[in-house]
This record gives sequence, structure tokens and C-alpha cells, in this order.
Amino acid sequence: MSEPYDAVDVIRAKRDRGELDDGQIDWAVDAFSRGVMADEQMAALAMAILLNGMGRREIRRWTDAMIRSGERLDFSSLSRPTADKHSAGGVGDKITLPLAPLVAACGVAVPHLSGRGLGHTGGTLDKLESIPGWRASLSNAEVMRQLEDVGAVVCAAGSGLSPADRKLYALRDVTGTVEAIPLIASSIMSKKIAEGTEALVLDVKVGTGAFMKDLDSARELATTMVALGTDAGVRTVALITDMSSPLGRTAGNALEVREALEVLSGGGPPDVVELTLVLAREMLAASGRDDVDPAPRLADGSAMDVWRAMITAQGGDVDAELPRARESHSVHADRDGVMTRLDALAVGVAAWRLGAGRARQGEAVQPGAGVELHAKPGDAVRAGEPVLTLHTDSPDRFERALSALDGGWAVSDSAGAAAPLILERLAAPD
Amino acid sequence: MSEPYDAVDVIRAKRDRGELDDGQIDWAVDAFSRGVMADEQMAALAMAILLNGMGRREIRRWTDAMIRSGERLDFSSLSRPTADKHSAGGVGDKITLPLAPLVAACGVAVPHLSGRGLGHTGGTLDKLESIPGWRASLSNAEVMRQLEDVGAVVCAAGSGLSPADRKLYALRDVTGTVEAIPLIASSIMSKKIAEGTEALVLDVKVGTGAFMKDLDSARELATTMVALGTDAGVRTVALITDMSSPLGRTAGNALEVREALEVLSGGGPPDVVELTLVLAREMLAASGRDDVDPAPRLADGSAMDVWRAMITAQGGDVDAELPRARESHSVHADRDGVMTRLDALAVGVAAWRLGAGRARQGEAVQPGAGVELHAKPGDAVRAGEPVLTLHTDSPDRFERALSALDGGWAVSDSAGAAAPLILERLAAPD
Repeated sequence: MSEPYDAVDVIRAKRDRGELDDGQIDWAVDAFSRGVMADEQMAALAMAILLNGMGRREIRRWTDAMIRSGERLDFSSLSRPTADKHSAGGVGDKITLPLAPLVAACGVAVPHLSGRGLGHTGGTLDKLESIPGWRASLSNAEVMRQLEDVGAVVCAAGSGLSPADRKLYALRDVTGTVEAIPLIASSIMSKKIAEGTEALVLDVKVGTGAFMKDLDSARELATTMVALGTDAGVRTVALITDMSSPLGRTAGNALEVREALEVLSGGGPPDVVELTLVLAREMLAASGRDDVDPAPRLADGSAMDVWRAMITAQGGDVDAELPRARESHSVHADRDGVMTRLDALAVGVAAWRLGAGRARQGEAVQPGAGVELHAKPGDAVRAGEPVLTLHTDSPDRFERALSALDGGWAVSDSAGAAAPLILERLAAPD
Repeated sequence: MSEPYDAVDVIRAKRDRGELDDGQIDWAVDAFSRGVMADEQMAALAMAILLNGMGRREIRRWTDAMIRSGERLDFSSLSRPTADKHSAGGVGDKITLPLAPLVAACGVAVPHLSGRGLGHTGGTLDKLESIPGWRASLSNAEVMRQLEDVGAVVCAAGSGLSPADRKLYALRDVTGTVEAIPLIASSIMSKKIAEGTEALVLDVKVGTGAFMKDLDSARELATTMVALGTDAGVRTVALITDMSSPLGRTAGNALEVREALEVLSGGGPPDVVELTLVLAREMLAASGRDDVDPAPRLADGSAMDVWRAMITAQGGDVDAELPRARESHSVHADRDGVMTRLDALAVGVAAWRLGAGRARQGEAVQPGAGVELHAKPGDAVRAGEPVLTLHTDSPDRFERALSALDGGWAVSDSAGAAAPLILERLAAPD
């Protein structure tokens, strides 16, 4: 079998700041999937893409090629419109948990097919797996049936969606090429477009705890993804949101499920409630349901009803006790004052080291491990009171978790102005 | 065994335009040799080096690390000084063949340990292997004995010299990262410094048939290599020479040996003679023997005597008939005039397609294949007379070779001024 392109020619074209044509892109993604383009060749190409960039046409074609490497779901036969949300991951980001049932309670179905978390940002599937009995894997038929019956599915993305991305992500992870915006955007969007959602709201986080450390990069990523979604016929909107502090008061799997249940019961931390409602309104608007106000559905228990049905449909025992870690350790304020800073990365790394996250694909996580935040920036604290509590089953992990938190928070006489949570909104031009 | 560095951190540092420190460089080269740094990781690093460059300290350290991956020869016990020459490769470049015995005939020993040719530029070892019986592989002890007894050795560089380079070159070849000047310079110089020569003259070619296509790149490569040699205590000089037309009147293995024998007999094409003498004078000067004029050693047969001893010592039959290709095909001028252009790349690719070179490591070459040039730029040609003759054992190769030559030469009413062969000379500042 003779190949229509040569890997070295394709690499050289991008290395020399050229634009890859459609045939080169289709071939590279396909040849890499087939193992004809070797890992070292794709690594060199990925580095050239990271350093020399790709244009909008190239990124769109690359995304299309990754979608075509696998199957593409279709929810057009459902009786309801569909909308999904993607977050690039942040510390304490449990928003999907209340959001999916809330939007479903408003009449829009939510097919949320998710990947596994890695590193200091927890994964939504890991959080849900702390619920006894809950299973992440569903067949396509089960996804479709649950969307029709319950209106919301949060489950593991099957290996059939964008398998080229799966292989490419593993390669990027070990070759220092994760941070290429064209590759991040096409990785996320190939999976979301293949997933079949009709509308998509992107929560692009920026700050120490996020993947994007500065607003310019976040804006570039958001703009690129909105264009990709729009070009593929998915109504796509992006919010850029702050991730310099953790969301809510918990980081860790069962800890975050508990917090999500507070929100679904009409309470919960204000920032989690705010972001949940803002994203819900965007998803409803993108589905033509901006006439529906989601806020009452939290207070009246209808979102909680969908949650219970959604968890039960996937085998979860909604009445079971959530796991708790065996050991805990609190950190106390050494003065009176106001918390001025609580660094998202510090908290994320601490939770990860306590056992809430994994360093490698396939590692087990501790469902009860994580960090509880008794104060957030702007809150008054008193000397001797606990500021943070660390939870783990393995007390030998406390020391390294505490060292991650060292310098990660500060208390002063007075707080500055609070930063807004929602920084920008980007949509495709009409 | 825990590693002191992480491959992704090293890749990221260079990706983000940082300087690699000595420890990172030592580790990367060593870890790659050991297989701890994977091929895809080194490919990403090589692309980052190609696009973001390396400083002089980094290149020197990288070169040192490659030298330390293997053995380093030492000729200080020889009764004569040593000097070698390296050419980055060009079309019709048979200069090493007359040069090594000529310099030896002037009292300076020449240890020329060579790699294999690849692509359109022929390899010196392939040329010599067209001599019946000649063998390229010598042990270190045989090299030393032949240098003492004969004064010149041209042989294959053993696998003990810079093995990290061997592995890295194979990787660069398939990942579009051959053209990184820091990696080219460190590849060449790691082998030449490990080879143990005390003086080194570099022939850096520029033009269509050369690796370096423009003078700026050639100058950057030459300057980098002179600095590396000088820093390592090797007296190093570089000449930048023209490779827009082939050297001499032949390109192909046995064809070029025949031409070398003409030079060693006091004749031969003027450009081959000129470059041989200029390089010989540089090698002698770098060895403190600028009192010796090499030119008479070609006319008086003393260089030929060393050639015969050198070939004989490696099993070659100096009196045997050199192989000839079974088939030939001549291209004729269609008008009277002056040849104005004869493109080195076109001739090199034609010779390669006729069987003189290989596309992959390990392929066999045809000793008799190649191109004979009956006219060179500036020569008068007459309509109907042969301009080029193609030689091969496989007549099915003529068509593709002819297509490579198409547009590669031109005849006009008058020729422009001849371009100089030696363009620049670079030496370390005193």
C-alpha cells in the first residue's frame, strides 16, 4: 500500500511556517491513527504546530479529521433539544453535577460525555464514582434511552468518539505539546462535535488553577473553539471565567458531590450557584429556551428530582452515605483578618496529593480525599479558627499536601475588591 | 532508578525559548541513548531546537555529551601530526580521495573516519568500495597501524564514536529535524572530535547541490563548527565553497574514483585540482607544515604512491579494472553555444536515481552508475555533441534520471562571468 503523502514532507511544511492543505491534514490524522505516521513523527509535527500555529481552516480540517476517525452520535430523533457544557477543568469545579439535571428540568436534554481527570483538576466522572453503585460507562443505546427518559446523562465518552484524539492526547502529554491552542481546541471540539450535542456552552477558565494562565490565551482558545463549533453547525458560546481561587468550598470527589447536593437543595456556595445559573441560562438560550428561568428549579426540588433519576438510572444509590476519608487535618489562622488570597493551584495540588486525583491514566483515586475551605477570599477569619481541612485515607500524604498549600493563602487587615467570576462572553458573529 | 530530570520539563524549557542548562543537556543525550527519553520526546525536543535555536554554550555541551556517549580516539602517540577534512557533502565531491594521500605525502597523517552517504550526495565509502577488494571497516588498532605505516586512512567510522549521534541522526531523518544547525554542527563535530584528529578543515558547501542553500546558513554552520572544534582543542578552519554545479566531470562511485586517479596522476579537472590543493594547504597549515607545497606531490607521483599503499592496506586491488555500468545513454546539445548552467542538484538526483546512491540506510549501490559531464559551465558545446552521459546497470532507470535533469542545464550564446569556487574562509579569532 503506497501512501499519498510523506510524513517528513508534512512535518517540514509546518516547520517552515507553511499551511497544511486538506489532504495533508486528513492523511496525517488518519496515518497516525493507523500507525503509519510514527509517534516520533507526530511529536515533531505537534511541536511545529505549537510553535508555528495553525490557521482557522487548518484547525477546522484537523478537527474534522479527528471526528472522522470515529463514530458521531445523533440526537435529532429525541423529542427535546440538546445542549452540553464543557469546562477546561478547574479546582473545585463541580458545576456539571447540578447543571446537567437543572437544564434537563428546564426541558433541554443534556448529553454530557466526559473524559477522565488528570493532574490537579478533578474529573467529573471521579466525583460521581464516589456515589455507591454509580457506573460511568453506558452504551450508545443506554445514553439515548436515558436522555429520552430522564433528560440528562453524565457518562464516560466511549472509545468510539474521536479515537485519533485519544492517541494524540497521550502522545502530547509526554512530549511537552499539550499547550498548543490549535491542538487543545481540536481535541475538545472533536469530542464534543462527535458527541452530537446541538448546542454547546464552553466554560474557559483562566488563572493559576486553570490550564490557561492569562486572559489572552483563554480568549484565543475560546474564540477558536466557538469558531469550530459554529462551523460544525453546533450553536456554541464561550464564557471566560476566573480560576484564580477554587470554586465553592470543596475540592475532592465526595466532598464536591455533597456541595452539589447543597446547590440542588436550593443552597450551596454563592459562586457555585452563580456559575451554575449563568451556564444554565446560556444552554437554554442556545437551545431557544431563553423563556425559561432556571433559578426556581433549584429551590423547588425539580432539578433534584432529575438528579435522583439520573444517578439511579446509572446504578447509583442516591440514599447511600457518601464516603468520608479516614483522617483529617486542619490548618488554622494565626491572626484575625480577612482572607485576601486562596490560590486555586495550591488547593488543587494539595487535593491531588491527598489522593483526590491521579498522576497517570488508570490510577485509582480516593473518593473521600480532598480539601475543605472554611474561608474564601473576602471572608473574615479569626486567629485559631480552622481555615482549611485536609482529608485523606493515607496520613503520610498530609506533609506533601501541606507543602503545596504553603504560601497559597494569605490573611490581611482588609480585602481588596472582589474579582468578578464571569470575565467575558464570546459568541459567533451573527 | 529515579531520573534527575523529567523529559517533558526539558522539552518545555526549549519550547519556551529557554536555555537548557548543562545538567539538562547531559541528561537528555544520555537518557536518549539509554532509551529512557523516548523517541517521540527527543523528536519534540529536536523540533523545538530547530525552531528556537541553541546558544554556543548549549551547542558545545550537547556536542560534549554526544562525544561522551562513546569512545574517543587519541593519535598523540603517532610520530606525525594529524589533520582531517570534513565536507558536508556535495555532488561529484571526490576530493577526499586525492586529498588524504596528498596530505600524507606531505608528512601529515590523515585519519578520515567517514559515515555512509544518503540521498543525492554520494558517500566517500561507496566510492572506494567500487575498488575490488577494498574494505571500509577497520579496527582502531588497524587505523593506528595504517596511519603510522601509510599516513592515511579512509574508513568507516566505527559504532563506538558518538553512538548517541547515530541514534539521533536516524530519528532526525524521519522527523523533519535534519536541518537544525545546532544539531548538524554537533553531529558532525562530535564525530570529528571523537575521531581524535588534531587539526580539521571543514568544507562547507553552499548552493543547490548542498545541504545549505544560502550563504547565511552556510556561514552560521561554519562559524558554529569552527567554535566547537576550537573549544575542544582541535585547530579548526572552515572554507565555504560553491556547490551550485557539480565538482569535476563525474558523479557516481567508480566514475569518481577514476577522476581521483587522474588528479593523483597530475591531471584531472581544474576545479577538483584547485579544491584539493586549497584544502591540502589548509590542513598542512593547521598542522604547522605551511612550509610544504603540496602541488608537486601530485605531479611527481608521491601522492599516488600513498594512494596505492592506502588502498592496498585495506585489501583493495589497485591494479584491478574499475566496474563499469552495463548501459549508457547520452544527452546531446541541440544547438551551438556555451553551457551557462549545470545544476548540481539535478545531476546529483540523476546519479542517485541511476543507482549511485541509496534512499535508505543499508541499500546497495551500483558501483558503475552515475553521470559523466562532457561540458561544464563556461565550456563551448556544439549541436549534436553529447553533453552528459548516464550510466546504469538498470536501463529502466534512465527515464526518471532524465526527468531529474530536465531544466537542470542550459546552453546560450555567451556565458556570464565564472563564479569563484572558494567563497569564504573562517577561522577562530586568535
